[in-house]
Amino acid sequence: MTGVTIGDVRFDDRGLVPAVVQDAENGDVLMVAWMNRDALERTLEEKRTVFWSRSRQELWRKGETSGHVQHVEEISADCDGDTLLVRVHQVGAACHTGERSCFHRRLGGLENEAGRPDRRSP
Amino acid sequence: MTGVTIGDVRFDDRGLVPAVVQDAENGDVLMVAWMNRDALERTLEEKRTVFWSRSRQELWRKGETSGHVQHVEEISADCDGDTLLVRVHQVGAACHTGERSCFHRRLGGLENEAGRPDRRSP
Repeated sequence: MTGVTIGDVRFDDRGLVPAVVQDAENGDVLMVAWMNRDALERTLEEKRTVFWSRSRQELWRKGETSGHVQHVEEISADCDGDTLLVRVHQVGAACHTGERSCFHRRLGGLENEAGRPDRRSP
Repeated sequence: MTGVTIGDVRFDDRGLVPAVVQDAENGDVLMVAWMNRDALERTLEEKRTVFWSRSRQELWRKGETSGHVQHVEEISADCDGDTLLVRVHQVGAACHTGERSCFHRRLGGLENEAGRPDRRSP
């Protein structure tokens, strides 16, 4: 694994980068949130995740009210530097619904297509 | 795990949703790409990932030239429906660099902060 710095991260035209949060202990993908440069700097300094809330337009220190803090073990940037992978030790649940991961809703459609490989035209 | 349909997916103002691609076999996060509704429908139909290329502004059938196809096992939507998690069986490397995962560049800064918890003010 090679190394990069915060200067290599490519924030988009809104100044944001998506951050995939993964459980460092079992590999589960817990959530995806957004960081601006300030949020990323604070995450590095505090070693716990800080995001940018697009709806509230403010920094959002994960777990500040719920106590469900994410202690950061490692951050990686992808090959073109416009997405981050944050490996964490999650206290409690990552999702506001109480589920441990935000990805607890399975999308139907895959199983229904079995045996109908040509159903592509309308 | 509850179930949702494609109608529950919330595409953004560009008509896109980020898709986190995870190796179904070992849990590694392989890459993040974008899908519009058409890409998601084709992914469901073909059971292999199809994305929307923001740079080329066209559908991008993963592995079409490289052969590094992603066979889809399961797709989940997150709690607010604006991000997808796609669990796949990856043929070859997910990254165009030849690395199996696009997240092979570690971001420095965490280890340097050890013992300097108060370094927050400028």
